[in-house]
Amino acid sequence: LADELQLENLCVVLVSTRNPLNMGAAARAISNFGVSHLRVVNPFEASFREAKSAVGAAELLKRSQEFQSVVEAVADCSLVVGTTAARGRELHQAMHSLPEAAPLIREHLAGGRVAVLFGSEKRGLSNEDLNYCQWVMHIPTREEHLSMNLGQAVAVCMYEIARMSAREVSSEYMEVANSAELERLTEVLMENLAASGYLKTNAGKSGEERVRRLVRRLQFSSDDAEELLGMLRKMAWKLGRKD
Amino acid sequence: LADELQLENLCVVLVSTRNPLNMGAAARAISNFGVSHLRVVNPFEASFREAKSAVGAAELLKRSQEFQSVVEAVADCSLVVGTTAARGRELHQAMHSLPEAAPLIREHLAGGRVAVLFGSEKRGLSNEDLNYCQWVMHIPTREEHLSMNLGQAVAVCMYEIARMSAREVSSEYMEVANSAELERLTEVLMENLAASGYLKTNAGKSGEERVRRLVRRLQFSSDDAEELLGMLRKMAWKLGRKD
Repeated sequence: LADELQLENLCVVLVSTRNPLNMGAAARAISNFGVSHLRVVNPFEASFREAKSAVGAAELLKRSQEFQSVVEAVADCSLVVGTTAARGRELHQAMHSLPEAAPLIREHLAGGRVAVLFGSEKRGLSNEDLNYCQWVMHIPTREEHLSMNLGQAVAVCMYEIARMSAREVSSEYMEVANSAELERLTEVLMENLAASGYLKTNAGKSGEERVRRLVRRLQFSSDDAEELLGMLRKMAWKLGRKD
Repeated sequence: LADELQLENLCVVLVSTRNPLNMGAAARAISNFGVSHLRVVNPFEASFREAKSAVGAAELLKRSQEFQSVVEAVADCSLVVGTTAARGRELHQAMHSLPEAAPLIREHLAGGRVAVLFGSEKRGLSNEDLNYCQWVMHIPTREEHLSMNLGQAVAVCMYEIARMSAREVSSEYMEVANSAELERLTEVLMENLAASGYLKTNAGKSGEERVRRLVRRLQFSSDDAEELLGMLRKMAWKLGRKD
């Protein structure tokens, strides 16, 4: 993952977070998406490093760096991005939606360190915190319900910034049935339909054509075509044997 | 937001969830992204509807629908998508990463109801649950730390499906068979397979499961399902009549 993407240059900074469970959840999310630097500024609970919610990221949470102020926490970062839920808020910085922001962050990561700041659960980032940000981003949420859970917001941001999909080997696909396989299937199905009387009551040639088209529409994998063929043959044998 | 995107056709289905806080968090996330249908199957805690974590989504959580089984929960859905963290797991369904899956889901929402299933925190969805799914999706996470928190996974999926920034104009689709139609088809096919002796020679329970999965993989339109059902009923009648 992430050959070109320099995720080691990304720091997530949690500012004045109240609930240690949210800090653990944030640690888990950043670990899920390949980010390893967590910084905290004035956490409400000194014991946050033990948060049980950091499933699979206990180490990452333990070695997170603690700072007294935002300015110290972002000192080595050349791009500092704030996050906010509030759309109406008076901002002195440019605002980007997350999908617009992520490519800008990825570009910057190639050459420098980036901090993404998340504020406290109740109040978000203060105007003073935002003064250290080059710009601000928001996750596009519904107008009537803007405010996300902190851990979920971190997860969504990491997902969008990492965007592993683009580089991942894409999922495996089953081999698709070829025309010969589909034709065998069609023939045996017709045989059954004839034996059961279905085709008699459902009109000759046009009935056959409908069956042929039906089989083509269903997009069988090769294995599935084989399996259904076995089923139909067994039915055909039984239908035939009893005549 | 989402003029063309028919999010009212999307249902999130939480299967056997243990922690009510995760259910509340899921409710909050789906509400953030404009989804309003939450369904739950066999929740571990009966009192989940009071979960404090559903901040801003308490009503949505309260009126979530409860079901005894996956098959009931998805009966009116014509696309059922499972989610899984495990990449190594042996699956009988096609697997898409979330960024590949989201456009498929959006397209489908234009013409039919879609269920996205999330399994329990410990075990995810069972193979039996997955048998009701057309296909499966995963969030691309780091190989060494695949497993996400449930509420965070729901948030990331909703973010990507809603993708409020980039809405595609959808094209026309055939009406896709819903789960109830597929189950009728499954039942009659099984009946035929039993009558013809196919299921006897191809092992009880696992044979049935293979049939159920096969029918889900084939992506029937409602009309095609109807047509094949007619064929199979005719065969069933003939197979039965001769005994």
